Amino acid sequence: MPEGLQSLEALLDPACIVTDPAAMAPYLSDWRGRRHGTARAVLRPRTVDQVSEIMRWATATHTSVVPQGGNTGLSGGATPDGNGDAVVLSLGRLNSIRSIDSVGNTLVADAGCILADVQRAATGADRLFPLSLGSEGSCQVGGIVATNAGGINVIRYGTVRDLTLGLEFVRADGAVIHGLKSLRKDNAGYALRDMLIGSEGTLGIVTGAAFKLFARPKVSATALCGLASPAAALHLLGFLRTTAGERISSFEVMCDAEMGLTLDLVPGTTLPLGARHPWYCFIEIADSDPLAPVEHTLADVLGRALEDGVLSDAVIAQSEAQAKAIWSLRFAVSEANRLAGASISHDTSVATADVPALIEAVLQASATRFPAARPLFVGHLGDGNIHVNLLFPKADYPTADALAATAGAVNDCIFEIVTKLGGSITAEHGIGRSLVGALARTAQPEALELMRSVKLAFDPLGILNPGAVLRKP
Amino acid sequence: MPEGLQSLEALLDPACIVTDPAAMAPYLSDWRGRRHGTARAVLRPRTVDQVSEIMRWATATHTSVVPQGGNTGLSGGATPDGNGDAVVLSLGRLNSIRSIDSVGNTLVADAGCILADVQRAATGADRLFPLSLGSEGSCQVGGIVATNAGGINVIRYGTVRDLTLGLEFVRADGAVIHGLKSLRKDNAGYALRDMLIGSEGTLGIVTGAAFKLFARPKVSATALCGLASPAAALHLLGFLRTTAGERISSFEVMCDAEMGLTLDLVPGTTLPLGARHPWYCFIEIADSDPLAPVEHTLADVLGRALEDGVLSDAVIAQSEAQAKAIWSLRFAVSEANRLAGASISHDTSVATADVPALIEAVLQASATRFPAARPLFVGHLGDGNIHVNLLFPKADYPTADALAATAGAVNDCIFEIVTKLGGSITAEHGIGRSLVGALARTAQPEALELMRSVKLAFDPLGILNPGAVLRKP
Repeated sequence: MPEGLQSLEALLDPACIVTDPAAMAPYLSDWRGRRHGTARAVLRPRTVDQVSEIMRWATATHTSVVPQGGNTGLSGGATPDGNGDAVVLSLGRLNSIRSIDSVGNTLVADAGCILADVQRAATGADRLFPLSLGSEGSCQVGGIVATNAGGINVIRYGTVRDLTLGLEFVRADGAVIHGLKSLRKDNAGYALRDMLIGSEGTLGIVTGAAFKLFARPKVSATALCGLASPAAALHLLGFLRTTAGERISSFEVMCDAEMGLTLDLVPGTTLPLGARHPWYCFIEIADSDPLAPVEHTLADVLGRALEDGVLSDAVIAQSEAQAKAIWSLRFAVSEANRLAGASISHDTSVATADVPALIEAVLQASATRFPAARPLFVGHLGDGNIHVNLLFPKADYPTADALAATAGAVNDCIFEIVTKLGGSITAEHGIGRSLVGALARTAQPEALELMRSVKLAFDPLGILNPGAVLRKP
Repeated sequence: MPEGLQSLEALLDPACIVTDPAAMAPYLSDWRGRRHGTARAVLRPRTVDQVSEIMRWATATHTSVVPQGGNTGLSGGATPDGNGDAVVLSLGRLNSIRSIDSVGNTLVADAGCILADVQRAATGADRLFPLSLGSEGSCQVGGIVATNAGGINVIRYGTVRDLTLGLEFVRADGAVIHGLKSLRKDNAGYALRDMLIGSEGTLGIVTGAAFKLFARPKVSATALCGLASPAAALHLLGFLRTTAGERISSFEVMCDAEMGLTLDLVPGTTLPLGARHPWYCFIEIADSDPLAPVEHTLADVLGRALEDGVLSDAVIAQSEAQAKAIWSLRFAVSEANRLAGASISHDTSVATADVPALIEAVLQASATRFPAARPLFVGHLGDGNIHVNLLFPKADYPTADALAATAGAVNDCIFEIVTKLGGSITAEHGIGRSLVGALARTAQPEALELMRSVKLAFDPLGILNPGAVLRKP
């Protein structure tokens, strides 16, 4: 047992303390393989009390702690740096669904529960836990809370912040804060819960969460539309919102360049429209009432939009297979981009109405400053969350290092556009370690000051995930 | 101009500085007339910059500032104490709707906008701002944000926290934090916005808010049901949630003792059911789709509930007049209680599934410890938010002072029951100055410690609404 860790052996059984390099390796790199850190140990506690004991020990020994869930983050927030003086605190063994209440529509889960298991538990009670992400088979409750995860159903159900009723977390000094209440209304003091949500492990260790559940959709209708512009897509969204209201589960947009790549590169994809269009919308509306006329509603809105010239063409899926085929075009984008070239991607958001301005500004900047790049757009229009992707010829950037310098310039360019529009440099992926500098450059200095004061209030020794979100003091 | 205020004259025109006792009076008492304070002046700025100047001045002079909106709070959070050393900062002159976006479904309003005006602005754009409170004709945006207001539509749309996308606020030192973003997703750093929401003026001065809007309901269906117990009402809610999902706009419960008082004391009220029942549910479902079969949905669920024995009786309104008559029974409760006796009321919440246990515990405690009282229950079952009211004979308590001693004992009793059930002593009214002692006694000490650290981080001099939420240090 390495020096300094011996006192841990009194608190945890040996199986909870991983120091073998091979066994530690998976915890020391991020999912995308872009960050590699070092640590004195990986700690894998089995209980909340053990998490508390670990934090007491960390406070007593001034040891940095990097909390980690499913290790699927895209901003490096769960990967220690190279100092080697931190321990990784893996929450994966705290993995029970503690309770589920189909009357109150709530579910309480340990931090280490995998998102897909939470979804399944809700379905088992004929309810919906609506959070849905690409990484749902691996990501964990603690991680989705710590990063305020978003995903594909935010337009209807919100982010993790909107879905969370209560939190249990361990303070830097080891005190367990028992905030795991399933209350719909509670105005007794400050919202510590909301300070923890999205704080990426820098203010406390989430050990459990109480979530909202929803009625499970029983009928749905899916459409693919061809349109002239992002402005037309916005117009269509406004139309749809007036009638379909909260039934809109997804409203996604894609530019034709991205559609072309997908059709060219991903086998089995076909466009179910008669012709190509400059832009496309993917729409799904769904209802918990099996008698709800969702297809009629969607057809009615699209019909009126066609008459008004908002739409150029549209197809409504007539079967589940057709709906799947439409969605497969949307989900094939990552694969198409991977095959197509060297891409530099961003997770931007602006006010929904500003999406056309964002896209126009990126097109202009890209043409003048990065003429070799093809700008691609795909994203969640209803959330104002557009994934901007500049695709460079693979031949020009044979290695990751070659791409890195250009990536810096592209990032600065996109962040400047987004900031001017009052948007966010990270809609859902978080700051982690990758965007600490970008946050420091783009956030209002007085707001950053407040964030630093909050950090000090929760973590006076600076031992909780140091270097994530904010620079080390 | 009183001593110490002269320097303000350089910052504000004289009309913004109220020192005449008669003109100040309405700002120095709370709406219920239970609290009366004193102040050096009431400041009524016209711009955010003036709010900033006032806070700079307050920091330089160590002057306490009590922010105030519509002054409709029920916990005394906007009323200064009797020291006389504070100024009241009234935000009512900042009263413009800054923008409204019916595509992005957002609205930006100044702190001093009256809630009803915000609702009207949304309706004018064929959208819904769903927050609805008894005080909506007077309460202001800054106040509803600072208290995280709830109201009658929380089951469907959530509290102000759920409705708020961005905030502009002025820090204790006068810095303006420009967080007025209308973003649906933003994970760039800590959620300062959510720390301010519900902080009751103790962490910063809210000057503007960006809110979510929703599709406006076009059809609705209303029912009144008679049931045997709170457990049956919960069962019915579960039934309804499975089918009607997010269409449930209200699900209210009332006990028969409360119904009896209402029918006896409030002229023009009648029960549209064939007989009296131990409990009643008021249900409204509504839909933005004018073609949605809401009445059919409601009839179907209630029919199945009758067959299963969950319900004893039910009536669905066949006209708007009938729906109004049903709701008038619910809204007449305050008047009935006022006429009936000396009442001590509570704004409790528990997990929805725990409502029957809460009611049972209150009934038992009331019978043994306050045999002269009649326990009455009415509230928002879907939110777990039950207004518990102990009604004492008026003859025993001729004055407010006579009631005060008993009120203390009743409060302790109810808070103990609620705390044991993991509930909240204040679901929606907030801590203000009235419940500071109760929060200190019932909250987890380590959570209170964190709240005190947060207060210090935002307001190191302790000049923002001192004595509200937390005790003065």
